[in-house]
Amino acid sequence: MIITAEEIKSWDRIRRLNLINSITGYKPANLIGTRSSSGQDNLAIFSSVVHLGSNPALLGMITRPDVVPRHTLENIRETGVYTINHVDQSIIRQAHWTSANWDREISEFDAVGLKSDELNEINAPCVAGAPVQMAMKLVEEVSLKVNGTILVIGQLTAMRVDEGAINDDGSLDFARLGTVALTGLADYFKTIRIEKMPYAKVENWSSEK
Amino acid sequence: MIITAEEIKSWDRIRRLNLINSITGYKPANLIGTRSSSGQDNLAIFSSVVHLGSNPALLGMITRPDVVPRHTLENIRETGVYTINHVDQSIIRQAHWTSANWDREISEFDAVGLKSDELNEINAPCVAGAPVQMAMKLVEEVSLKVNGTILVIGQLTAMRVDEGAINDDGSLDFARLGTVALTGLADYFKTIRIEKMPYAKVENWSSEK
Repeated sequence: MIITAEEIKSWDRIRRLNLINSITGYKPANLIGTRSSSGQDNLAIFSSVVHLGSNPALLGMITRPDVVPRHTLENIRETGVYTINHVDQSIIRQAHWTSANWDREISEFDAVGLKSDELNEINAPCVAGAPVQMAMKLVEEVSLKVNGTILVIGQLTAMRVDEGAINDDGSLDFARLGTVALTGLADYFKTIRIEKMPYAKVENWSSEK
Repeated sequence: MIITAEEIKSWDRIRRLNLINSITGYKPANLIGTRSSSGQDNLAIFSSVVHLGSNPALLGMITRPDVVPRHTLENIRETGVYTINHVDQSIIRQAHWTSANWDREISEFDAVGLKSDELNEINAPCVAGAPVQMAMKLVEEVSLKVNGTILVIGQLTAMRVDEGAINDDGSLDFARLGTVALTGLADYFKTIRIEKMPYAKVENWSSEK
């Protein structure tokens, strides 16, 4: 069936949020670790981390200044650094509950029971045991005119990962990492690899396969 | 182990591309359908579609003006519209091969063997049979100073989906859709749902669970 934007607009708010948040497909599940200038740690789940460039390694994430997790944005502005940590199957529940509206003076690490660690001496906590931990420095903040959403752009300065989780070609071995995927606001998935496709060159295409 | 950005910089280019493209975690697999002002259809796979807002429904995607799939961006600028289509298990190979450097006068629909369809009378083709098809209109184009990457922002005007693939709460039923996830440049995954977490309210948290 076809549903128009006008029809979606008439849906109740929660139903519309659930549809539009799930419409893009699978999303990454990452925990963003930050520290305020007064030393208060913060941790928040984000599903909007996106690749912007490989050399240097630039990653973006979308946030809003007016809603949870606004503490994350405030802290990044104060310190200029943050961490990105993959969510694996063992910490789904804790990761998800960082999205509750905890008071600013409460560390979500303590609230949900996750252990923090240090990474590359930056002034932001990472998640101990997370299968991929990235140290990031803020590069640019872009405010989107259309709805006030903010694209936070950071550059990777270091990462922690098990040596055995990097394939020979440099890609990460997701079966080994145990990283989960997310849809909508709160649906968590594990995965089964179907196949790795080759680099697509026109002369190698065969419709017979 | 810890790997610094300096070490990654010393890796060969392909290895670095594979690492940094996989580092964000799972990504959505979507086909973007466009048409040039002269009527030439184009189709390209993107892994960077991201949610920007729900009311109105705003979605972003990242592209670069200087690399494939640049025809997509040119066409969106010409017509102001495009479609976003979920990739399901039945079309992984065709979807992936849209990333080859096909000549501009070749329609990737014809090249890889996918059937086009019309959606909501916009001047862009959608992918017939794709489990979710979205008609989009261009709202804003944001050039990122840091590396010339472009964030294309569009507003949903209509969508096509099986009625039974929308859950009671408005979210999409991904088991039914068969949509796949992507990591890195070309690793495709199917999924198994682990659990849906509740809306996280501080007063409902229990560390006992």
